[in-house]
Amino acid sequence: MIQSTEDTICAVSTAPGVGGIAVIRVSGKDAIRIVDEVWLGKKLSSVAARTAHLGDLSDDKGGILDNAVATVFRAPASFTGEDVVEISVHGSAWIQRELINILIKHGCRMAEPGEFTRRAFLSGRMDLAEAEAVADVIASSSRASHRIAVSQMKGRFSSHLSELRDRLMDLASLLELELDFSEEDVEFASRERLLEIACQVNDTVSSLASSFADGQALKSGVPVALVGSPNAGKSTLLNNLLGDERAIVSDIPGTTRDTVEEVIEIDGVNFRIIDTAGLRDTSDKVERLGIERSFRQIEQAKVVVLVVDPAQSGDEIKGMLDEIDGRTDDMSVIIVAKNKNDIAPMEIDLPERYSQVSISAKRGEGVDRLKAMLLDASGVKNWESDRIVTNARHYEALINAQNAIVRVIEGLNAGISGDFIAQDVRETIHYLGEITGTITTDQILTTIFLRFCIGK
Amino acid sequence: MIQSTEDTICAVSTAPGVGGIAVIRVSGKDAIRIVDEVWLGKKLSSVAARTAHLGDLSDDKGGILDNAVATVFRAPASFTGEDVVEISVHGSAWIQRELINILIKHGCRMAEPGEFTRRAFLSGRMDLAEAEAVADVIASSSRASHRIAVSQMKGRFSSHLSELRDRLMDLASLLELELDFSEEDVEFASRERLLEIACQVNDTVSSLASSFADGQALKSGVPVALVGSPNAGKSTLLNNLLGDERAIVSDIPGTTRDTVEEVIEIDGVNFRIIDTAGLRDTSDKVERLGIERSFRQIEQAKVVVLVVDPAQSGDEIKGMLDEIDGRTDDMSVIIVAKNKNDIAPMEIDLPERYSQVSISAKRGEGVDRLKAMLLDASGVKNWESDRIVTNARHYEALINAQNAIVRVIEGLNAGISGDFIAQDVRETIHYLGEITGTITTDQILTTIFLRFCIGK
Repeated sequence: MIQSTEDTICAVSTAPGVGGIAVIRVSGKDAIRIVDEVWLGKKLSSVAARTAHLGDLSDDKGGILDNAVATVFRAPASFTGEDVVEISVHGSAWIQRELINILIKHGCRMAEPGEFTRRAFLSGRMDLAEAEAVADVIASSSRASHRIAVSQMKGRFSSHLSELRDRLMDLASLLELELDFSEEDVEFASRERLLEIACQVNDTVSSLASSFADGQALKSGVPVALVGSPNAGKSTLLNNLLGDERAIVSDIPGTTRDTVEEVIEIDGVNFRIIDTAGLRDTSDKVERLGIERSFRQIEQAKVVVLVVDPAQSGDEIKGMLDEIDGRTDDMSVIIVAKNKNDIAPMEIDLPERYSQVSISAKRGEGVDRLKAMLLDASGVKNWESDRIVTNARHYEALINAQNAIVRVIEGLNAGISGDFIAQDVRETIHYLGEITGTITTDQILTTIFLRFCIGK
Repeated sequence: MIQSTEDTICAVSTAPGVGGIAVIRVSGKDAIRIVDEVWLGKKLSSVAARTAHLGDLSDDKGGILDNAVATVFRAPASFTGEDVVEISVHGSAWIQRELINILIKHGCRMAEPGEFTRRAFLSGRMDLAEAEAVADVIASSSRASHRIAVSQMKGRFSSHLSELRDRLMDLASLLELELDFSEEDVEFASRERLLEIACQVNDTVSSLASSFADGQALKSGVPVALVGSPNAGKSTLLNNLLGDERAIVSDIPGTTRDTVEEVIEIDGVNFRIIDTAGLRDTSDKVERLGIERSFRQIEQAKVVVLVVDPAQSGDEIKGMLDEIDGRTDDMSVIIVAKNKNDIAPMEIDLPERYSQVSISAKRGEGVDRLKAMLLDASGVKNWESDRIVTNARHYEALINAQNAIVRVIEGLNAGISGDFIAQDVRETIHYLGEITGTITTDQILTTIFLRFCIGK
């Protein structure tokens, strides 16, 4: 449900629970007046913008709720673009709850998830891609994903899109000018020039769209499947990668039945390492289920690390690689980790498309080299943080924009009339506008901001 | 370990975890300079005190860590009395951790628990009782305990103690003046007047000390033991008090084996309701253990509610009351809740010291009256929020002060010489001073502030 943007809203903006301090944010045209009603101290309506004031909060029952600091921001120079008061109180759960109750009694409404950011968008303080990036900034948990989110929040991604839109706008106006003079059969826009611009736009849009798989991997962690025969040392390797004993390591073949997922950070990039059940023939039903699950994990992995050991023959290893090949696509990278090199070094003759690394999971030898290979394989180092797409909504819009611009190119090549081409150009502009929110609907906004936390 | 108060310290002051925003507090002589080193925006060293500024935080690697708001407070007008910068960032765990790391790299030290408040005490911004109340304000979870903590934080409790100390100081100076003229055998201080003041001090100190039991109950919740035969309806009553189905209710006698503790708030006061195992003879070892535990709960309870039902005879009930009587002291209140009045009303002839209430736990009848009786029995309504002691350290100091002032009274009555009396007066002053921190040691401070959270 979309509530009125005329209401003054309030919410606890800091993490839930007890802390030293907590911040309650109030935003809207009555923000300062409402806080003044419960503020025992200097009248906030008379203070300068962006100043902080110490005072007491009334408990509305003749007592004092807390000693607090109120910082006043005035429209339009605030996060939401409206009048905002941020009240910093002692972080007891009781005070936080009580202050919200009191503010509501005085005319505030509880903010919906993301409503402060939504208002920032509606008041033109940020575009939609920037607003969405706020949630990504808060959720990001690795250096790489954080850097992309901050870059998007700062509008760098949006400015690339605006550039494209501007170029397309020029193109569209020229084409539409022709329509006005259609009887005279003039071409204001040179078809070569149009084609050049359309191809440039297509290149950029395609490149952005194709960054999405890596962007997603970066955001949620690059999925790595750790596979191999029982006892080849997968769990030991996982522990070594993690730096402590997380998974259960045992000598009984087939011990790791459930897939275990752990996250490691290599040079700022998160990898989700999935320790799969061993790949071997078995009649054990439960274990068979685990192996089925392994295959599914392989299908979804960006990188597959096959752990082998000297006890295995070259043919056996090739057999396993064939099975993995059958379940991965061209985008996946397969690394063969030749384990137990402390027992015996392995020489296997494998096609070049498989990377090989000699390790001793037990002794930790070669593990750093494996990490470097994972980082390379992730592909995320190839992307600049302001040219990578991490948001599924943006990806969808880019694909739609790409389809439209391809039609423009085809139309130009086929020499079809300007008005049809203009229509496809307009469509491309429309889809690019969806990303930054130039084109939007209440439903899109609701979907976007519902994934925010309350108080942001 | 006591670290230098010369260091500039930093910590996340908001609750741990992910939120819309998080606040990192930096305090110390280099606070503003250090933040300026990582602040991409208006130089904070040049801004007015108590103003808030939007800017970017450098990630120290050429990138941007976050877009943030920094509020500058200058010594001595800040929480700690030192220069303070409060940095409001997006509340991702990653940003919080990274900003702390960066600040440490630039010369900050991680603050110890309570170190900001400790500095506020050391710089004279608050006395020790007020500083301790800050932790109580944060921890308080009911209206009543909150009100006491805020009252103490605002210095109301301390001002009562200062008054006492001032009176004793006058007394001590007069007595000490006599010593200078001891050969002349004059009495500057009338012994009657001295006795009067000593008795007044003793009254106040004793009253404060005796409020401690209620103060403790108020702070952590008034302990109420719910006892009775199996199936008398204890669990149903508990659920009714709580307002939802928390404990497991069943018809098998002896079902509630472990003590279950639930907290309810009645008129701003928290009650810890302990549902005990049934009181009945049993050969079941596990159940017998539960009953033993019931007895221990009864011993610790401020109020015992004995739930009985029409199936029980008067003698049986009296027998149970005898058992409860033997395990409670004079301070405890025993309430007999005559349950199932929807089946049959009960008339039992009991001594006046037992309160009685007729209820139907199933239908919720009489439960409000029981709640009112619990509130009465708690005794907490008799205390004013600025004259109740909730802190064990204060209690101990008050008991010591009380012992000393009693010696003063005895000395005056026995007519012993002024110098002995002066010594006991000084001792009383000392112990009262321990509460507000006029007299203190590093060890006391360390013990006190270690129970604070980091960031406060």
